[in-house]
Amino acid sequence: MATNGKAGNIVWHKSSVDKVHRQELLQQKGCVIWITGLSGSGKSTLACALCHALYSKGKLTYILDGDNVRHGLNRDLTFKAEDRAENIRRIGEVAKLFVDAGVICIVSVISPYRRDRDACRALVPDGDFIEVFMDVPIEICEARDPKGLYKLARAGKIKGFTGIDDPYEPPLNCELALPPKGNSCASPCEMAETVISYLEEKGYLHA
Amino acid sequence: MATNGKAGNIVWHKSSVDKVHRQELLQQKGCVIWITGLSGSGKSTLACALCHALYSKGKLTYILDGDNVRHGLNRDLTFKAEDRAENIRRIGEVAKLFVDAGVICIVSVISPYRRDRDACRALVPDGDFIEVFMDVPIEICEARDPKGLYKLARAGKIKGFTGIDDPYEPPLNCELALPPKGNSCASPCEMAETVISYLEEKGYLHA
Repeated sequence: MATNGKAGNIVWHKSSVDKVHRQELLQQKGCVIWITGLSGSGKSTLACALCHALYSKGKLTYILDGDNVRHGLNRDLTFKAEDRAENIRRIGEVAKLFVDAGVICIVSVISPYRRDRDACRALVPDGDFIEVFMDVPIEICEARDPKGLYKLARAGKIKGFTGIDDPYEPPLNCELALPPKGNSCASPCEMAETVISYLEEKGYLHA
Repeated sequence: MATNGKAGNIVWHKSSVDKVHRQELLQQKGCVIWITGLSGSGKSTLACALCHALYSKGKLTYILDGDNVRHGLNRDLTFKAEDRAENIRRIGEVAKLFVDAGVICIVSVISPYRRDRDACRALVPDGDFIEVFMDVPIEICEARDPKGLYKLARAGKIKGFTGIDDPYEPPLNCELALPPKGNSCASPCEMAETVISYLEEKGYLHA
């Protein structure tokens, strides 16, 4: 038996109250709404609108925001490549716990690489990972530049900035792309409604 | 502005739906019940009994079990000293997120060092960290030896085993020590009731 072989000596404990019970209590199904896209594409805004709209329906959500998590769980991570991957891995693992808790977990994080997002998708049961792509051209994101980061990246003061000198890999098979085609001026509330319709249709808003 | 200085370039996003709203929805207050003690002291058993009893009162709990977390979020960590501390730190950070979500988060982990437990306590608002010490003599834990680990440790096949060749630092100011004095044969259900009375008294079972 390994003593320091990572998960040696470890037994899995199953609790008598499980996900099904928690979902019954909450009258919803746990899932991850994974919002991916460039800086300035509206991820956090959509996350807030969604959280608000679901709250008004009596649903329990929790937002894992890439920036916020960097202040806590992931405060030890830098922005170098392997730390970025680890950042996403940990967010995925925490989202998995929230899904198991029965919560609708809204993740708002650039998550530029397909491989990292797909690894997070693989952590949760089929169907429970709902990838929402903020399909906003970089010109628009850069014009918004809500945190002034594009300006710094263009000035060479931030290196490895997604969309400028680091790639963003758009999803190939996301569940939703927003704003919906033909409605490029959809408001955050309208986009939230699109996500909620999807959740409703897939049965996530009932136990 | 730092580019790889850990939390550089990062803005805190506040959501319009906050902890108070979630607590209102759940009719409870988020808190951590941090169960600490030797291997075999009954941490997981108490966690399950507590989860069950709170569920029967319509309360949403989630168990973070040290062993289970090692299969997911903390799968990259070994049992060497700094990884053990990091294991506890991450569990504390995740518990903090659950508390913020309004959930009663039950942590079941040996967590032998005071310093690590106190660091986790400091992450959540005052009062929301309820430290429960499984005050069971090592002789009893070793006689139970549910996972056969004491036997392996005594045989020298596990090094750095808490209570054998690595210290356990009992809490100095825990909220609860179990079993209650004078009732050393308290059942898991009775111990769960002791915790629930504490939660009730402190107002955690109402919004």
